[in-house]
Amino acid sequence: MDCIWDTRSRLCFVLLFGNLLSSFVSVHGLNLWPMPKSANHGSNTIYLSTNFQLSTHGSNYSDGSGLLKEAFERMVNLIEADHTTNSKFPNYSVLAGVNVAVQSPDDTLNFGVDESYYLNVPAKGSAFYAQIEAKTIFGALHALETFSQLCYFNFTTKVVELHAAPWTINDLPRFPYRGLLIDTSRHYLPVPVIKSVIDSMTYSKLNVLHWHIVDDQSFPLEVPSYPKLWNGAYSYSERYTINDAIEIVRYAERKGVNVLAEIDVPGHTLSWGFGYPSLWPSKSCREPLDVSNEFSFKVIDGILSDFSKVFKFKFVHLGGDEVNTSCWTTTPHIKQWLNNHHMNESDAYRYFVLRAQNIAISHGYDIINWEETFNNFGDKLSPKTVVHNWLGSGVAEKVVADGLRCIVSNQDKWYLDHIDANWQGFYTNEPLTNISNPTQQKLVLGGEVCMWGEHIDTSDIQQTIWPRAAAAAERLWTPFDKLAKDPEQVTSRLAHFRCLLNKRGVQAAPLVGFGRQVPSEPGSCYKQ
Amino acid sequence: MDCIWDTRSRLCFVLLFGNLLSSFVSVHGLNLWPMPKSANHGSNTIYLSTNFQLSTHGSNYSDGSGLLKEAFERMVNLIEADHTTNSKFPNYSVLAGVNVAVQSPDDTLNFGVDESYYLNVPAKGSAFYAQIEAKTIFGALHALETFSQLCYFNFTTKVVELHAAPWTINDLPRFPYRGLLIDTSRHYLPVPVIKSVIDSMTYSKLNVLHWHIVDDQSFPLEVPSYPKLWNGAYSYSERYTINDAIEIVRYAERKGVNVLAEIDVPGHTLSWGFGYPSLWPSKSCREPLDVSNEFSFKVIDGILSDFSKVFKFKFVHLGGDEVNTSCWTTTPHIKQWLNNHHMNESDAYRYFVLRAQNIAISHGYDIINWEETFNNFGDKLSPKTVVHNWLGSGVAEKVVADGLRCIVSNQDKWYLDHIDANWQGFYTNEPLTNISNPTQQKLVLGGEVCMWGEHIDTSDIQQTIWPRAAAAAERLWTPFDKLAKDPEQVTSRLAHFRCLLNKRGVQAAPLVGFGRQVPSEPGSCYKQ
Repeated sequence: MDCIWDTRSRLCFVLLFGNLLSSFVSVHGLNLWPMPKSANHGSNTIYLSTNFQLSTHGSNYSDGSGLLKEAFERMVNLIEADHTTNSKFPNYSVLAGVNVAVQSPDDTLNFGVDESYYLNVPAKGSAFYAQIEAKTIFGALHALETFSQLCYFNFTTKVVELHAAPWTINDLPRFPYRGLLIDTSRHYLPVPVIKSVIDSMTYSKLNVLHWHIVDDQSFPLEVPSYPKLWNGAYSYSERYTINDAIEIVRYAERKGVNVLAEIDVPGHTLSWGFGYPSLWPSKSCREPLDVSNEFSFKVIDGILSDFSKVFKFKFVHLGGDEVNTSCWTTTPHIKQWLNNHHMNESDAYRYFVLRAQNIAISHGYDIINWEETFNNFGDKLSPKTVVHNWLGSGVAEKVVADGLRCIVSNQDKWYLDHIDANWQGFYTNEPLTNISNPTQQKLVLGGEVCMWGEHIDTSDIQQTIWPRAAAAAERLWTPFDKLAKDPEQVTSRLAHFRCLLNKRGVQAAPLVGFGRQVPSEPGSCYKQ
Repeated sequence: MDCIWDTRSRLCFVLLFGNLLSSFVSVHGLNLWPMPKSANHGSNTIYLSTNFQLSTHGSNYSDGSGLLKEAFERMVNLIEADHTTNSKFPNYSVLAGVNVAVQSPDDTLNFGVDESYYLNVPAKGSAFYAQIEAKTIFGALHALETFSQLCYFNFTTKVVELHAAPWTINDLPRFPYRGLLIDTSRHYLPVPVIKSVIDSMTYSKLNVLHWHIVDDQSFPLEVPSYPKLWNGAYSYSERYTINDAIEIVRYAERKGVNVLAEIDVPGHTLSWGFGYPSLWPSKSCREPLDVSNEFSFKVIDGILSDFSKVFKFKFVHLGGDEVNTSCWTTTPHIKQWLNNHHMNESDAYRYFVLRAQNIAISHGYDIINWEETFNNFGDKLSPKTVVHNWLGSGVAEKVVADGLRCIVSNQDKWYLDHIDANWQGFYTNEPLTNISNPTQQKLVLGGEVCMWGEHIDTSDIQQTIWPRAAAAAERLWTPFDKLAKDPEQVTSRLAHFRCLLNKRGVQAAPLVGFGRQVPSEPGSCYKQ
């Protein structure tokens, strides 16, 4: 005997057990986020063993680093964190564990690594296993996340159930680059906070943490080659050691998340000069970096040399946006240098960006640059460039028409610091708008939502990110033809996901209203 | 060689090592929160071993439940969570661990348990220990928290240091009751979120979690004696099983935090009737609980009987506030009952509260009631009553003059949902205002800050609580004569504590402005 909840009347309808099983499907619907490529299910309920096991029968992946074991334990903890489960248990339809078979023995997280997976949850047996198959361990991690979202706590029996079995899910991401930007220059974010952001990203299968490390306001990172750079930090303790950076990368990669490091040059660099004042055009005119000074490029080379030992992602971000070159023309020694080299301000901007690109390439990186570089001298950029759109829509189509790669972050829709950008806008922002040529479509690597830090610190970062970032995450993961044309069609599923984030301790804000809204009145999480 | 940070100029002054040690004291000051009763220190820096050990030489406490070991490991994790420490290490002035000597073998968390402690950190030796002495394990837990606040990460050597040793700290709380209210009726708070609130309470030595479990809007808790009560929950999954409640109590008690359960009667009870409609005066007039119906008291008895097996705190909270009795006089069968019993509305309100008190007493509880009960019929309340002030100031003095005990939560200063109540008001709110008689002073058990949940859910609870609750926590812990007369004198120390909370992953908001402010501009945590 059990009951079906009617939220309107708050009555609990008692039904026969058999009815309950199928009715849960209709009550909960298919509440996976993001929606998989294909998911088929039946109508049986099965029970998770309280001694749920990981098995790796048929796997080529040895898990020497413990990555899979750790992910499995994390998943079990998530499933069980919410409620104390009962030791009394049905002795039938008990799922004993999950068997994970990974084809590749390699767990290096390269860009474009195969993230696909197959998940099968049978409906019957006395002690049977769910089956996960994946080309790489990173596909298997996504499968575990999907599996966790199939599990429900039954408040009558107090056991964890899996409804609507058997399940067969085939899944893979639409785009290989699904990013979230954090900004540790405008406000320092402690390492445990960055780790919690990484944790939360994995719940909606985002896979790139774009770390906008430094900017005008502060330079929090230790750079061994130029140890005075972090004199530009806000304070003694608002800093990251290089080992902290290594730890953040290690932590992220073990969860399938790449870390994209950014140094934004030549603008947005005021904080660099606190340690090395000669990087400033002058003491009174303190950015962009002095284009006439070889030391500027030596420092960039030192930073990228250090980065190449820490940030193993294929890309480094070199910024290049919002460069106001007036200090170059008003500072006598730079003005003289421009004259000597027959450059105007635009030439010097291009010269700086391209030279920085070459330095990055010499350290093995492909480069990401903000779109102003493309808008000003797109034909001169290295073919290794990925153009990062932000100013508005319509840029990606131009970039890929020119044969370059692109990442979409148009600020009107995908800037999380725009509090008036609602989740519906995040959901409907389509990276391939006006791009129909399949070759050009492939040049759009994906997109990224940006959590700029002017008004963001530990106190408000997570509720400003979530649930809006999750709306974009489905756009980036789910096949186009499975995406809702009208975002209101996914409201209840996204609300369900936001409540799931809450249960996992993530401070995801209500859906109603704009970003970071506080609840407007008492009510259910699922309705707010 | 190292540097002293000048936040204004962002310059790092190089000093000889010996200078550094003493200068850290002036840079960081005495940044403990709350301020201990007495703290003396020297000027030496010592280093925490990377293999920091717990020892219990001379302790009578066997730690059979692992409570101390767990607390020690938690503390080490907190100290080390922020930055990766270096394996290279000085071979002198290394603190090998902490020795904890507890007098009492008992780790039952009774109300008024001795929370005092003595902490000594020596300055010299080759492999020496800090010494903690406490009457009970709960004093020792506070000592570990204080110890953790003495530790700093050195960004040059990458080791954890303890500055200004030797330290001798004698400490004990001013009030035995230092509470925080959470409200799971207006919005459901998942169990992991409640646990994270409990964690954060221990950082400022709060020791009572007042769990306002149910109210008009929802009844989320399973009550085994009356299993339909939680039909009044918002939804199927926004509920706590009785085992969840047991787990919350267990979790809190292991950290020295008592859980005060509240059922607010006879008002604030609309949600009760979804499961048992006869508790409503009528279907159209649904609160207070039907005073004429014996079933109302049977249900209260059942709840408190179940509570007595779960909530082992000396007190249960029976509410009693904001009772609008109009449904009693407009519902014919109740009106008739009132007439039969020669009661008016006030009489019936008193009758209900006193009868509920007697039920609680029969289950072994002392009772806490909101102040309206005292304001209306204070002379009739059980001597086991603690009056919970909330409407305004000036109540405690009347309560204790009448020989009853009191808890202070005047809403103008200590209601966290009052977003316009600033931390300065939380800090300066004095529970003993106008109470000079020592016997009467002892009747003020302490105070409580209240996080009512109308606009609070997982997304915004922690930054609405912190740092303002911490300001009240010092008022409740620190001896009166060590409290700042002008709150601005503690601004930088409180800012330091708020940044410490952030480093520990707690979403404490900026100090500047009112409650739950987002950062107004880029800047250092220590300045916002």
